[in-house]
Amino acid sequence: MFTPATAEQRFVLEHIVRLAEISPEAGEMMDPVLEGAGEFAAGEWAPLERLGDTEGPKWTEDGVRMPAGYAEAYKAYVEGGWGTIGSPEAFGGQGLPVSLSIAVLETLGTANMGFALAPILTVGAIEALAHHGTPEQQALYLPKLATGEWTGTMNLTEPQAGSDVGALKSKAEPVGDGTYRIKGTKIFISFGDHDMADNIVHLVLARTPDAPAGTKGLSLFLVPKVRADGTFNDVRVVSIEHKMGLHASPTCVLSFGDHDDCIGELIGGEMGGIRAMFTMMNNARLNVGLQGVQVAERATQRAVGYARERVQGVRAGAPAAIVEHPDVRRMLLRMKAQTQAARALVYYAFGQLDRGHAGDAAANARVELLTPLAKAHGTDLGNEVASLGVQVHGGMGYIEETGAAQHFRDARITPIYEGTNGIQAADLVGRKLSMDNGGTLFGLLSEMRGDAEDGELLRLIDACEEVGRTLLSAETDDRLAASYPFLTMLSVAVCGWLMEESGRIAARSEVDPTFLKMKAAATRFYVEQIVPEAMGLKAAAMAKADVLYAIDAEAFAA
Amino acid sequence: MFTPATAEQRFVLEHIVRLAEISPEAGEMMDPVLEGAGEFAAGEWAPLERLGDTEGPKWTEDGVRMPAGYAEAYKAYVEGGWGTIGSPEAFGGQGLPVSLSIAVLETLGTANMGFALAPILTVGAIEALAHHGTPEQQALYLPKLATGEWTGTMNLTEPQAGSDVGALKSKAEPVGDGTYRIKGTKIFISFGDHDMADNIVHLVLARTPDAPAGTKGLSLFLVPKVRADGTFNDVRVVSIEHKMGLHASPTCVLSFGDHDDCIGELIGGEMGGIRAMFTMMNNARLNVGLQGVQVAERATQRAVGYARERVQGVRAGAPAAIVEHPDVRRMLLRMKAQTQAARALVYYAFGQLDRGHAGDAAANARVELLTPLAKAHGTDLGNEVASLGVQVHGGMGYIEETGAAQHFRDARITPIYEGTNGIQAADLVGRKLSMDNGGTLFGLLSEMRGDAEDGELLRLIDACEEVGRTLLSAETDDRLAASYPFLTMLSVAVCGWLMEESGRIAARSEVDPTFLKMKAAATRFYVEQIVPEAMGLKAAAMAKADVLYAIDAEAFAA
Repeated sequence: MFTPATAEQRFVLEHIVRLAEISPEAGEMMDPVLEGAGEFAAGEWAPLERLGDTEGPKWTEDGVRMPAGYAEAYKAYVEGGWGTIGSPEAFGGQGLPVSLSIAVLETLGTANMGFALAPILTVGAIEALAHHGTPEQQALYLPKLATGEWTGTMNLTEPQAGSDVGALKSKAEPVGDGTYRIKGTKIFISFGDHDMADNIVHLVLARTPDAPAGTKGLSLFLVPKVRADGTFNDVRVVSIEHKMGLHASPTCVLSFGDHDDCIGELIGGEMGGIRAMFTMMNNARLNVGLQGVQVAERATQRAVGYARERVQGVRAGAPAAIVEHPDVRRMLLRMKAQTQAARALVYYAFGQLDRGHAGDAAANARVELLTPLAKAHGTDLGNEVASLGVQVHGGMGYIEETGAAQHFRDARITPIYEGTNGIQAADLVGRKLSMDNGGTLFGLLSEMRGDAEDGELLRLIDACEEVGRTLLSAETDDRLAASYPFLTMLSVAVCGWLMEESGRIAARSEVDPTFLKMKAAATRFYVEQIVPEAMGLKAAAMAKADVLYAIDAEAFAA
Repeated sequence: MFTPATAEQRFVLEHIVRLAEISPEAGEMMDPVLEGAGEFAAGEWAPLERLGDTEGPKWTEDGVRMPAGYAEAYKAYVEGGWGTIGSPEAFGGQGLPVSLSIAVLETLGTANMGFALAPILTVGAIEALAHHGTPEQQALYLPKLATGEWTGTMNLTEPQAGSDVGALKSKAEPVGDGTYRIKGTKIFISFGDHDMADNIVHLVLARTPDAPAGTKGLSLFLVPKVRADGTFNDVRVVSIEHKMGLHASPTCVLSFGDHDDCIGELIGGEMGGIRAMFTMMNNARLNVGLQGVQVAERATQRAVGYARERVQGVRAGAPAAIVEHPDVRRMLLRMKAQTQAARALVYYAFGQLDRGHAGDAAANARVELLTPLAKAHGTDLGNEVASLGVQVHGGMGYIEETGAAQHFRDARITPIYEGTNGIQAADLVGRKLSMDNGGTLFGLLSEMRGDAEDGELLRLIDACEEVGRTLLSAETDDRLAASYPFLTMLSVAVCGWLMEESGRIAARSEVDPTFLKMKAAATRFYVEQIVPEAMGLKAAAMAKADVLYAIDAEAFAA
């Protein structure tokens, strides 16, 4: 039931990311990488997906045990070198552009979404160390993280500190030798423990003595599960959560320093925690947007497969597979179009990240602007498509054995973690809108306007400009009240721009006519039917906060 | 965590249904019924909700066993007379308007959605027998069904016959004494077996010998679990399904006539099956729309409770509960508004049903038009609101113990069963649009236009008229391609009309100021922000089918 989306990935990498411009070497390696990753994911990871959902990891007194086969499949991933593609060359990685490495991550996550969270988190740890670690730390940890032999975690959330990360209370006491004793409880730690790697590198936000309150007082610590001397650190898995989905990923409660013997190393200096966290987080946010693509792709494949086989009713006088009925086609074409749009948006953002890494300041600003869009809209689309996938299956979609329900359950975490989509929207209308006093946004809109041909797309771009200019000078509450509708409008406009361009490219291309016909239909559907929907959000994006505060909190219970 | 929505129900029954016009007696009984049902549901049914989800019914060789406490809670429902409210007076019911009885069903289902499916199905069986049964059948079965001592089921679906009910193969051979031997396998039979009642009345669609193919050849049979002579009928529970949600409701595979001893009685004459089925089905469709209201109400209550208690971040310099943050308020007010809109739509349709029963032909036509809207849009809103409920909870929403995830899972079946929402949309642009050559629709739109004050609402009503007139003369495929977007536009227009009217009433009312302030805010939010969104669907509703058929079925797999 899993087929790697190789043709689509190639199209987007070639024409939207323009990978060969970023790195001619990567352009040449693209085909073998995409094909090899697809083969590996189909052979080794996809077959374990359902077991990850039905059985899932188990908590034991000796730590978390993954379901049968996971440790071997993870080892195969490490040995195949799949972890090294985007890792730094200085530490054993291949140093290829992120845009290419995330195509591999997409394929792994489409095959097995929960499992692929392990590499995603490891990438975050690599980023944090590569940017903020000392040469000694880098030498000690990066080679093993670069291959995936060791995995990484992000430890931010505490029971009282979720979106409000500045409220966290975990403590770090300096020991005197440059290390710190860490003490505190962290929740929602994905792959916080498992039995697939020799070591786990926990990156932990905590507060040094006398640190100021709020995010300013946070520092980041590296806490290895196994210390350099081979002894276990004082980190305990208290429990794993009973989640609605994404069961293959063990979500741990971790207790640090129960026996006052949890030793951590500072990463990025005291009070440098929030900066280092954002290094991890920004990458992670784009990668969560990519999870939206993963689940959308998989749900679409499953629905298409079912719709082509399931015969119900007649068409032109003969029994017909449901794919032939107009409203089922509408759902399937919408799934195709939204999946392609999400992929175009997320890959384009990663492409800008690569260009930024190479020194392009405008691209750096653009990826900052696009990160909340890729994360929030990418995951919203993942959820929409997964829900349509259930619907296409009819009653069978509600039966767990069919598999469509798992995608629906798995997808639902993505608008929540790595900063809820509401936090993304706040980031958009706050820091991101303000960049260069709106110049980053308006520069993008101006480029989009120059390319756009469809009248409705132009209208939407103009509406985004109008709303953006209004919000730029609006009161905070009014900006926040408008933030989510504006994020969706703007995301659809960006997707519409990328989809329209994709349609133009498909029209003049000649490879793989079946693929190109579908691309043409999906891009047309997107521009003609999905773009106009987003105009409907303008009223909400221009509304002020007053209706929200016309009632007291207690009236919501009335 | 469960509070009956008594103030809202009273408001809608008084001002939208205008219950006292339909039955002065019901108007007087309204308050005690709403309050008594609320107390009963809170005390007896709500406490069992989570057990229904986590443990659920179990299949055994002797039939299905409900979780602990369910049989007793069902007995309390029967003994409290809650089943009798809308049942026919001639058979021991109270004969009160459906509008009042569904307020009781709403409350029961808000407390425990899966459990409340048992009474919903029994109502369907009562309707079928009351309209199509012989006096003898009515005398034998209706008194026990009217109280709920016996429960009912609907047996339509077979593995090869879902939306295409005409494809079913179950057979009914006349025995000679007026009864029939039934043979076949039915799937997705809600409460197909359980241990809460002495008998279960299965209504089974099957085909008599030499019956024509398709729906025309179907007949409806009554197959009691226990026959009049006290012996068990030849009906076997083969298995129960592993569903994503609604676990409290056992979804059975039933095998009829394994030993050639399944005896059924004909209901409504040979080949009268499809007519009798629609009698059950139309009522059931409105009741599924009502399930959308149930799950929306419960999800909203849970999210409001959490948002008022969960402190994150600051507002005006002080730590604040998240209900105070603009984007959380936006979500909560949207949940309130959509729940109220769904309730107004579904109750209004039931009110028209009552007026139709009393001889008002225009109301009869209107409820036929509104049934696909109430079913599809009511359940779409239930899903949207349940998803927002998860989002408001942040990471906790993804943890099963919180309860928000259950609503999200439970809600997802409602757009599927009793005719998928796509089937509802097809019904709307097919039979319902054609009624009186469009007159039923255009009459409603004209009434709405006469009442509407908001400019955007008027625009939406005009757009519905334009799309409706276009579709009336459109080719079948074009009509079907546009059906779902049109259904949503029209539903939002009807809800906008009812919500605007509700806002006017709230503005001049004086009871319960806190409730009225929330009503005013929710109706304003609906008209100002949700109504304009629906205009965004016009392009899709005016698009033709050609883009859907620009590709072959196999291209979807490209």
